[in-house]
Amino acid sequence: MFSSEVLPATKSERTRALIRDVALRSFRERGYDATTIRLIAQEAGVSVGTTNYHFASKNDLVQELYLDVQVAHRDAAAPLLAETTDFVERLGVVFRTGLAQLEPYHRFAPEFLSASMSPRSSMNPLSDESSPARDIVLGVFRDAVAGAKNSVPKEFREGLPSALLLAHLLLALFWVYDKSPGQQRPSRLLDGALKLVRLSLPLTRVPVLRGPLRELLDILAEVKV
Amino acid sequence: MFSSEVLPATKSERTRALIRDVALRSFRERGYDATTIRLIAQEAGVSVGTTNYHFASKNDLVQELYLDVQVAHRDAAAPLLAETTDFVERLGVVFRTGLAQLEPYHRFAPEFLSASMSPRSSMNPLSDESSPARDIVLGVFRDAVAGAKNSVPKEFREGLPSALLLAHLLLALFWVYDKSPGQQRPSRLLDGALKLVRLSLPLTRVPVLRGPLRELLDILAEVKV
Repeated sequence: MFSSEVLPATKSERTRALIRDVALRSFRERGYDATTIRLIAQEAGVSVGTTNYHFASKNDLVQELYLDVQVAHRDAAAPLLAETTDFVERLGVVFRTGLAQLEPYHRFAPEFLSASMSPRSSMNPLSDESSPARDIVLGVFRDAVAGAKNSVPKEFREGLPSALLLAHLLLALFWVYDKSPGQQRPSRLLDGALKLVRLSLPLTRVPVLRGPLRELLDILAEVKV
Repeated sequence: MFSSEVLPATKSERTRALIRDVALRSFRERGYDATTIRLIAQEAGVSVGTTNYHFASKNDLVQELYLDVQVAHRDAAAPLLAETTDFVERLGVVFRTGLAQLEPYHRFAPEFLSASMSPRSSMNPLSDESSPARDIVLGVFRDAVAGAKNSVPKEFREGLPSALLLAHLLLALFWVYDKSPGQQRPSRLLDGALKLVRLSLPLTRVPVLRGPLRELLDILAEVKV
């Protein structure tokens, strides 16, 4: 029942964990729009007041969902990252395990997208509110780059994880729009892009390309909402 | 008062054009959320029934807005495209004149984004409903590619306009998120990307890169909602 690693100690902590688990299941089974605080309270067997005490709004529960997904992403990527020091393979591991976490949500993805795309939404993956979940996936990309033996030149390494995070969000966007059976197209797009990255990798050492590439990374790294 | 090139002939056509112009001004001045059929009817001096007769929903008026923006985009790009046959300069013209059309809407862009991002929304720029407006900008990109003397190899030319349209939409997305004064960052991102495209252009003739590049273009060209 509790997805947290350590069993909650106090009654209040147990109630919070229960509400959280009920909400996360509801997001998976009903989607974003049909999940309400009232329904969650009812299914958790607590009052709306108790639910509000632990989570001030539905969006606070979305943040719990984000954390849950990103922790699962990190846990799925870790053992596979341990198996290779190849830069492009490591990127593939992070992007692929990231896509895999999203899979149960495809049916309701348009609802989550509508609610989260505005730069004014606290549910936006680039918002301040989303930074705990975002920092987890950013850390996974940072590890992927740091542990690679044939990475890009040092000057690109600092800005790269942020740019990779944006690429991850764009791949997720492509995945939301995809209607192919089993969402094969995002995987194919990823495979094609990684193949190009591998072939283009030596180009990051070509002096004339380094300046503009660095500029692009710097502008992309500034993306905040 | 009428933005159409030919003056509407019948009373019904004049009424339709009036409602349309009032709605487009309202989108610019009030944004998407605060624009209602009731308000438009009131300001046009017609009944809600008359407004609904000409435009079945607010989203039909959004399509008029899209058409207005894309026609202005095409008209702004045409004289500048006539001045150069350089491939990268021509792309720059289309992207830059595209961004310029969006400028009056920046304040309300998050509202339009929330309403249009779902692949289930008729307002989505990739929806069937949006195809008349989309075809205009696709045509501008097609012209830009066709009229260039130093373009990419022939095998890329068919899929390229669709990929450029997606790039245009992603640049618009970056623009929605941008808070820099005068939205300088989208322009800087564009300049940096065009510089890289110019330097990378010879690479589209490298045999080992052509396969994966072609694959990517094919997958991107399939994007529909």
